[in-house]
Amino acid sequence: MMKGCQNDCAAGCMGGAAKHVTESFKAADLIINPSTTLKEKPDPNGLVFGTVFTDNMLFVEWSLTSGWEAPHIKPLENLSLHPAVSAFHYAVELFEGMKAYRGVDGKIRFFRPRLNMDRMLRSAVRATLPGFDKEELLECIRKLVEVEKEWVPYSTSASLYIRPTLIGTEPSLGVKKPSKAILYVILSPVGPYFSSGTFSPISLWADPKYVRAWKGGTGDCKLGGNYGSSIYAQREAMELGCQQVLWLYGDEHQITEVGTMNLFLYWRNEDGEEELATPPLDGIILPGVTRQSILDLARKWEEFKVSERYITMSDLQAALKENRVKEMFGAGTACVVCPISTILYLGENLHIPTMENGPQIATRFLNQLSDIQYGREDSEWSVVVS
Amino acid sequence: MMKGCQNDCAAGCMGGAAKHVTESFKAADLIINPSTTLKEKPDPNGLVFGTVFTDNMLFVEWSLTSGWEAPHIKPLENLSLHPAVSAFHYAVELFEGMKAYRGVDGKIRFFRPRLNMDRMLRSAVRATLPGFDKEELLECIRKLVEVEKEWVPYSTSASLYIRPTLIGTEPSLGVKKPSKAILYVILSPVGPYFSSGTFSPISLWADPKYVRAWKGGTGDCKLGGNYGSSIYAQREAMELGCQQVLWLYGDEHQITEVGTMNLFLYWRNEDGEEELATPPLDGIILPGVTRQSILDLARKWEEFKVSERYITMSDLQAALKENRVKEMFGAGTACVVCPISTILYLGENLHIPTMENGPQIATRFLNQLSDIQYGREDSEWSVVVS
Repeated sequence: MMKGCQNDCAAGCMGGAAKHVTESFKAADLIINPSTTLKEKPDPNGLVFGTVFTDNMLFVEWSLTSGWEAPHIKPLENLSLHPAVSAFHYAVELFEGMKAYRGVDGKIRFFRPRLNMDRMLRSAVRATLPGFDKEELLECIRKLVEVEKEWVPYSTSASLYIRPTLIGTEPSLGVKKPSKAILYVILSPVGPYFSSGTFSPISLWADPKYVRAWKGGTGDCKLGGNYGSSIYAQREAMELGCQQVLWLYGDEHQITEVGTMNLFLYWRNEDGEEELATPPLDGIILPGVTRQSILDLARKWEEFKVSERYITMSDLQAALKENRVKEMFGAGTACVVCPISTILYLGENLHIPTMENGPQIATRFLNQLSDIQYGREDSEWSVVVS
Repeated sequence: MMKGCQNDCAAGCMGGAAKHVTESFKAADLIINPSTTLKEKPDPNGLVFGTVFTDNMLFVEWSLTSGWEAPHIKPLENLSLHPAVSAFHYAVELFEGMKAYRGVDGKIRFFRPRLNMDRMLRSAVRATLPGFDKEELLECIRKLVEVEKEWVPYSTSASLYIRPTLIGTEPSLGVKKPSKAILYVILSPVGPYFSSGTFSPISLWADPKYVRAWKGGTGDCKLGGNYGSSIYAQREAMELGCQQVLWLYGDEHQITEVGTMNLFLYWRNEDGEEELATPPLDGIILPGVTRQSILDLARKWEEFKVSERYITMSDLQAALKENRVKEMFGAGTACVVCPISTILYLGENLHIPTMENGPQIATRFLNQLSDIQYGREDSEWSVVVS
């Protein structure tokens, strides 16, 4: 399709009747045709994560020849795709995970959504999928949540999970940068991660035989391939009575991530210092929004050392032996923080005294973040949706 | 859906009215409803790989509750899938690549198709996708090619490319073993890899900053995630004037694969022996059918040493300096063998004298394999389709 030039064009648009490749869709061009039949909203307390979806979706098509089409908000519907498309064969695909929260003041908020937009664009570059204007996408998502605002749970222990997705839809079998793509966003109300409302600690299986990500790979981007390849190890963990995988890396058995979460250790370190430590962003760690927020909060508190550093299983074993470990927890959008009680490592069950220690620090992060998310505390991290 | 027990059931079927989960689909249950409108067959000499598809596809659905449904041969059509399915988000997906050849005697043949079936089932296990009976799938594919036999090019330099695909269609966002899946097979006529009919050597870019696969990962299976993550490096190779990536591994810069092909080096080794060498199947190498066939042929010939061994870039550099390298080539289903003339490594252009040396051995493998594929030579590796 030929289009007149209606957009800023960094790449030298010829203007007038010349063919214009749209560098980004614009929220101002949104075509909103919401569903006329509305589903019943479920009780947020009984929900299984990511199984119930709202009535509408955001949908934007891209092609190499025309660039981005106008974004649509339209009824949630199946995608109809040629069986050769690159998302099916070569996992040319990425996603994001974020939430909208209904605050105690009735306002709906996002939590640091620009960190998700930044990461999504980085993932798009790595996957050779098209770029876009991050503020335009955020505004389209805001509009979608506004359309679906009755789906944001009336609860301070539930939220509306937001899943932006970008897939390559090149309908041919060459392994190459796709000439077509679809960006879409679906929404799913999610209940409290811990149904009891209190922490339930999890047990981990740490075995060097499966590796989540490696240097020179894609572990620092949110590409589909990082996740599908983890399910086999997750099943083995469950067969061994553990709930999640603790992913190790290298001959030293560095601790990297847990399941689909970042990992934190709160301890007295080798030098006797109180320290909150998490692995550094060296290419194999997903730069989580919750991870960043915990680091930012802890650095603002200035009450203990905060480190992005390597920790090996033998560091952890030594610290456990010397009673230096206070808490270990996962951190992610789904659960905020998730305490860890046990690690099964090389046939040995390591007990982590997270729960015996409160968990003081994990609870403090959870409360602080949830105060911001649900509007009990003002923060520049909040973005009001409506 | 409840089903009566009509199949052998290794898992203890209760028989009668009891619910039966079908462990594999059966070729005898095939429902064949081919397209009534037929597309025009293209000239195989002008084809771009994987862009033209035949009229029909094989399609089989699976669910955790019912197992496999009956397989269908039906008109090629779009897949209609919920936007939450696990193939879009977590790359729960795998594929195979094989070919049907029209021989000089008019018969259509597969080449070692059971190696593809074996690998596909191994990929399915690793991806936590459902298993199946390999012979039943092969027979379904044979039936599909029989229906589409006029699409097998009348040419001994073209063939019908066969793309079996298995995707997870779990319509929810939990990262878990899918409860639904679709297995499908599409067909695409492909022309000669080298349009001139003779070898065109390729140039490679070898840089340790991108790593295709690693131990503990999925590089030995044909999962989508292995391929999408390679495109970014492939583009950088092309920007540097090279055609493919030579994938390195580890601090020693081990040579592993080239693009989407296995790699062979024919040389006089450090001990002065004539040797054909390829990296061993240690978890990061795709076990290619052409790779195995070249090894099998060379071992039968007993004319030189045949090794599955590690080769590093410095081994190669030393051998080039001492004029010990004769040929290097990639090996895969698409091109059979693909000669290599140059490697750009750490800023240096290494000239590989493959073409100056014939390439004698690469040509011999190409001729031998193509004699078998096109029925000029009888072989137990051939499976007659019809």
